[in-house]
Amino acid sequence: MTQAEIEALDLSDPLAAKREAFAIPEGLVYLDGNSLGVLPKAVQQHLEHVVTEQWGRDLIRSWNTHGWVDLPLKVGGKIARLIGAEEGEVVAADSTSVNLFKVLLAALKLRPERKVIVSDIDNFPTDLYIAQGVVQLLGTFELRLVKKNEIEAALDHQTAVLMLTEVDYRTGYRYDMAGLTRLAHDKGALVIWDLAHSAGAFPVHLNRHGVDFAVGCGYKYLNGGPGAPAFLFVARRHQPHAFPFLSGWMGHQAPFTFVPEYVAAEDIRRLTVGTPAVLSMSALDAALEVFADVDLEVVREKSLKLTDLFIDLMAPLAARYGFELVTPREHVRRGSQVSYRHPEGYAIMQALISQGVIGDFRAPDIVRFGFTPLYLRFADVWEAVQRLDRVMRQALWKDPRFHQRAKVT
Amino acid sequence: MTQAEIEALDLSDPLAAKREAFAIPEGLVYLDGNSLGVLPKAVQQHLEHVVTEQWGRDLIRSWNTHGWVDLPLKVGGKIARLIGAEEGEVVAADSTSVNLFKVLLAALKLRPERKVIVSDIDNFPTDLYIAQGVVQLLGTFELRLVKKNEIEAALDHQTAVLMLTEVDYRTGYRYDMAGLTRLAHDKGALVIWDLAHSAGAFPVHLNRHGVDFAVGCGYKYLNGGPGAPAFLFVARRHQPHAFPFLSGWMGHQAPFTFVPEYVAAEDIRRLTVGTPAVLSMSALDAALEVFADVDLEVVREKSLKLTDLFIDLMAPLAARYGFELVTPREHVRRGSQVSYRHPEGYAIMQALISQGVIGDFRAPDIVRFGFTPLYLRFADVWEAVQRLDRVMRQALWKDPRFHQRAKVT
Repeated sequence: MTQAEIEALDLSDPLAAKREAFAIPEGLVYLDGNSLGVLPKAVQQHLEHVVTEQWGRDLIRSWNTHGWVDLPLKVGGKIARLIGAEEGEVVAADSTSVNLFKVLLAALKLRPERKVIVSDIDNFPTDLYIAQGVVQLLGTFELRLVKKNEIEAALDHQTAVLMLTEVDYRTGYRYDMAGLTRLAHDKGALVIWDLAHSAGAFPVHLNRHGVDFAVGCGYKYLNGGPGAPAFLFVARRHQPHAFPFLSGWMGHQAPFTFVPEYVAAEDIRRLTVGTPAVLSMSALDAALEVFADVDLEVVREKSLKLTDLFIDLMAPLAARYGFELVTPREHVRRGSQVSYRHPEGYAIMQALISQGVIGDFRAPDIVRFGFTPLYLRFADVWEAVQRLDRVMRQALWKDPRFHQRAKVT
Repeated sequence: MTQAEIEALDLSDPLAAKREAFAIPEGLVYLDGNSLGVLPKAVQQHLEHVVTEQWGRDLIRSWNTHGWVDLPLKVGGKIARLIGAEEGEVVAADSTSVNLFKVLLAALKLRPERKVIVSDIDNFPTDLYIAQGVVQLLGTFELRLVKKNEIEAALDHQTAVLMLTEVDYRTGYRYDMAGLTRLAHDKGALVIWDLAHSAGAFPVHLNRHGVDFAVGCGYKYLNGGPGAPAFLFVARRHQPHAFPFLSGWMGHQAPFTFVPEYVAAEDIRRLTVGTPAVLSMSALDAALEVFADVDLEVVREKSLKLTDLFIDLMAPLAARYGFELVTPREHVRRGSQVSYRHPEGYAIMQALISQGVIGDFRAPDIVRFGFTPLYLRFADVWEAVQRLDRVMRQALWKDPRFHQRAKVT
């Protein structure tokens, strides 16, 4: 494909105008929205309003007058539409890790006679760590970690919970949510899906697939800002039985009666805990407005075109410089990122960043490029590959400064 | 005391100039800093910088270049100085409730042969709820809730943990942290102090009193904004043994190696869990700068003068209109708030708020006034009492609109 043909794709892109909703640094090609989404312009203005007017002027009254107390449900409702859930099934709260801890405990309690949690050994580490903490805490459980192709075999009548992240953070491999949920249910187990790399990236259909629980992240494809509140989903049928072991006052049936006995709220609010981080939550709230008129099927279509284009343009570089594609070519198995293995991946990515193309590196040897259709142009994909070609051709990555590991990679 | 004498107190107040550091609405007397501190001016500017420059321009690079990854420890270090702890003993993270869950589990694990958690039945509800959740989860524990004067008797060789909030949120009663910590230790128990109404309000001496664990709130006297991140303290001697059952990736020894096995960080970072809420955390970070040159002994001295003055000026109203003082007159037993019981407390407080004096109401019948010495003037105390006098004299509180309960009280 020629540069002119690629520019033509941008001209016919139904999402092209969305880019205007984001503050994107001039000349930067940002392929790391799968790690931290760019700043929606609406957030700047809204957050200034929240700080100056809501906090600064109206102070404590804002809990009522500006609906601070309803933010977890309101923001959850905006997310629900994006992941195939209903209002009242999703709440924004805490971090993904804390939310996973909550729903994992709730799920295990729903299958008291079963003692095994199954997951992918390549699942995002925090998910595995949280499960390890739960196992350590409760004493009688087992965390069974297997490779992707062994999951079906690992599920049995001892399995309480199958816990997976829909898109593998390293390779971009996308699981079969429908099929695996069915397999788990067939064995009598519950499923928890982590939607960290799904929510906002493509349509998710939690209820259509009968998913029990889900958690996810606010700062990646939802563009909620660094460390934005996460979310959790509990299918309506489980809500009366999903016990909130992290039973804080925000999950109480009547938080402001200040009684000493905990009585869980009847709805999903029971899985909120402490006072919500209103500033961070407000940023996420404003960021989600960008999605109000977005059809995620259109997002998905563009995402696949962007990732296909990238893989195509990278093919000669991959052959010449030894990048091994680890993202599935098959559309149905692909998230919205493309990853390659390269033994010098870390330095190559640092050199590429110095050229104004930001992707990231995941240990041990993965260079990772995230494609966010709301603000990425086909021309950006072309440009990114040109700059990577220069990094390799001129061996820019050999500069010693690109080999120094930063604290955060 | 005459109005002129009171104005003279402001003229000789060593903290008078600090008021300039805060954005205080014209004409408002804000006596609710014990529930949500006012906006420090430095926060507005800093947060705009964080949003526009750090997130908007530098994007994912800010984890390193703007030290986002170090914020929990950095902010914790600023709080440490205010509560008599050392750097590396305090970390800012999550909510107070989630932090209490973490340290309570860690503490119980340190006393495996003991099965009782002792607390005050009038403790802030979320603290009791969290303990109830832990008891429910672990099955073999007992939560023993007693009245303040029964705590000593309730401690025995079965007690694993004594868990108290230093200042009673309703009455403003301040516990004897030194004495109760000693009593608990004498019985072989550990102590957890909740500093929600202590941190930033007066000097706290965790290490001097040998406290084991503490948690606290960022949005009250620390002025970190609505739902600001909370903090937790683990005495250095306990850190290697304080197991983080909420074992998320931020508490891993090496979060960016992405290994499947959880290995807890050796320092207090082990008690962090998921990605920190950078926007909310940055607001708290900037807010804490206000304390950089503040001597908390001076804060305490002014706080006692403010609360003494309020109690004195309120004496005739209390007698005339039936307000029952429930805050101790004894300085050593008083936090930085003054509370009265009144059967019409809710409506009276709503009427007072309509007159531009903001305090709050706590069920069933407490009107509560918080005194934040950094931005409150003695003249404000005078003014508040004048306006309350008008509310009572003219029976403004009888207006039906002041009797309608809002969602958040």
